[in-house]
Amino acid sequence: MIEDSHNSRTNLSELGEFGLIDLLTKNLAVKLPSTIKGIGDDAAVMDFKDQKTIISTDLLVEGVHFDLAYMPLKHLGYKAVMVNLSDIYAMNATATQVTVSLAVSNRFPVEALEELYSGIELASKIYNVDVVGGDTTSSTKGLLISVTAIGKASLEEIVYRNGAKPNDLLVVTGDLGAAYMGLQILEREKEVFKVNPNSQPDLDAYTYLIERQLKPEARKDVPPMLKELGVLPTSMIDISDGLSSEIIHLCKNSKTGVNLFEEKIPLDPAVISACEEFEIDSTTIALSGGEDYELLFTVSQTDFDKIKGNPHFSIIGHMTEEREGMHLVTRANAKIPLIAKGWNAMEREED
Amino acid sequence: MIEDSHNSRTNLSELGEFGLIDLLTKNLAVKLPSTIKGIGDDAAVMDFKDQKTIISTDLLVEGVHFDLAYMPLKHLGYKAVMVNLSDIYAMNATATQVTVSLAVSNRFPVEALEELYSGIELASKIYNVDVVGGDTTSSTKGLLISVTAIGKASLEEIVYRNGAKPNDLLVVTGDLGAAYMGLQILEREKEVFKVNPNSQPDLDAYTYLIERQLKPEARKDVPPMLKELGVLPTSMIDISDGLSSEIIHLCKNSKTGVNLFEEKIPLDPAVISACEEFEIDSTTIALSGGEDYELLFTVSQTDFDKIKGNPHFSIIGHMTEEREGMHLVTRANAKIPLIAKGWNAMEREED
Repeated sequence: MIEDSHNSRTNLSELGEFGLIDLLTKNLAVKLPSTIKGIGDDAAVMDFKDQKTIISTDLLVEGVHFDLAYMPLKHLGYKAVMVNLSDIYAMNATATQVTVSLAVSNRFPVEALEELYSGIELASKIYNVDVVGGDTTSSTKGLLISVTAIGKASLEEIVYRNGAKPNDLLVVTGDLGAAYMGLQILEREKEVFKVNPNSQPDLDAYTYLIERQLKPEARKDVPPMLKELGVLPTSMIDISDGLSSEIIHLCKNSKTGVNLFEEKIPLDPAVISACEEFEIDSTTIALSGGEDYELLFTVSQTDFDKIKGNPHFSIIGHMTEEREGMHLVTRANAKIPLIAKGWNAMEREED
Repeated sequence: MIEDSHNSRTNLSELGEFGLIDLLTKNLAVKLPSTIKGIGDDAAVMDFKDQKTIISTDLLVEGVHFDLAYMPLKHLGYKAVMVNLSDIYAMNATATQVTVSLAVSNRFPVEALEELYSGIELASKIYNVDVVGGDTTSSTKGLLISVTAIGKASLEEIVYRNGAKPNDLLVVTGDLGAAYMGLQILEREKEVFKVNPNSQPDLDAYTYLIERQLKPEARKDVPPMLKELGVLPTSMIDISDGLSSEIIHLCKNSKTGVNLFEEKIPLDPAVISACEEFEIDSTTIALSGGEDYELLFTVSQTDFDKIKGNPHFSIIGHMTEEREGMHLVTRANAKIPLIAKGWNAMEREED
């Protein structure tokens, strides 16, 4: 399995809170002109000039959102940042800063937190955001990460969930379901590992799936790409909870219905073959799997020519009048009501 | 003891995440012109026009920062907001928005979270801030609250920790040590309650102390008061970890020394008598107690006339050259090195 190798162990108590913060944040240089004051005061100060301030926040809890049995700490740090940046990009905005807070039990040595921070640092470099603050405290159990992402956009650029109109095209970036199938692979290997700790699994066939689960990338490229194409979406949301749940959010906020075409849902071949292996329906996984961190948006039909054939985008349906309802049109051309999480076998409520 | 009365119990799972968020946030109307988009999209959007964006974040963890045995949930919600607003005021800024995230185990019924949110709502009303986002998730144990406070200030108004100069006056708002003594009273009553659950303690004499612990108020009034007086502090910090630790932060960031005069430290009579009762030195408590959420700042000597005699402010010392070191000048006129947390009997490292 994937392992963290901690050769040395330094107790958190040896450093104290301020020493720990100094150690963890020493490589986090401020690089953006919009960051006036980063870590080290009561609060961070940012200057977005005539642009608006965009803010989103998420909690990741050990045992709920991640399992350290297969999630290396560096990847966890990276992913915690991605989850939040994705929300900023979903506003069609530029992510500029993050704050990162940790609650951590003393079972974690300092070296583990350095590993976690190395992932945060890597994400901040690749995505060009400054880490400008946070809080580090002890917890009575486990690890919890709270990230707040900050971004900017001009008022005209910001895209909400509520602007979709009937006949707008429904578009999704990338492909869906891989993160969920990656999780299934990792869960299976964890069980194998419990029975035989010496087993050396061959995970080569699942590389893409596991990467999508352990090292997701947020779609930083999409807002500038849309701008270059001259497309301003009418509504947009990020896909963290699975396609169907997010489509329903767009419809409810925009007061529209939708026709989603099963055959148009983009699936990587690795997802299809893993679904066959696990005997799960791949459409169900795309609809309900979650954690893909792709963007879902609607555009006016007049933008069709600008979107079609772009390898980053799949047109998967169109919005309808609200009274027409929200439907999945299957490959067999049956119309099935779209429900919050999955359909068919996975029918269950949002939780 | 102080109790939460939950007559009904609704399991969190009955509502689901989105139902819960809807329920908890239903009373949180957006009221500020700077809030363009509050709860309900991927991110919140704010417009601070030509002012800078100020952001601070804190985590409060059950069993570490609060004990629900004596902390009513409504008060906890209120305090979680105060802790963060205090950081914004310490930048000499105006607090405008907060995001509130909760990780909560299923031992809490929905009604408990409604109680918690009623405190958040009360704080947001009294302090005129909008709750614009957050995240609600399950935890494997206990309750954790992560608040991010957002504010605004013009560049010229912002006060950092690093601007103090030798000979500047050191000023503190309000009085110190009461929150810590309030905690001692509550801890003692908890022990009494364990032995005899029917005991009806008379806490009237400790009202101020307990209020300072359970319902602290952030110093929203101080930035506008300073403005009205025509005083721009040279440095400022909020007192969350005790006076000595925060003075040391100011000195280290400003590269100065300090002389702090013991006799000038403002103590409420209730603190003095409780310290006598508990046989603790009241100066030690003021220096190291923490959780007072008062503001500590430095002003140029030329501002002396504007500050002196103001009932909100106590001049407690002055800054010196860095090489002169950081000292407490006792009532007996002895100079004792100021250390991070307490001095004398409480000598210990920052943690």
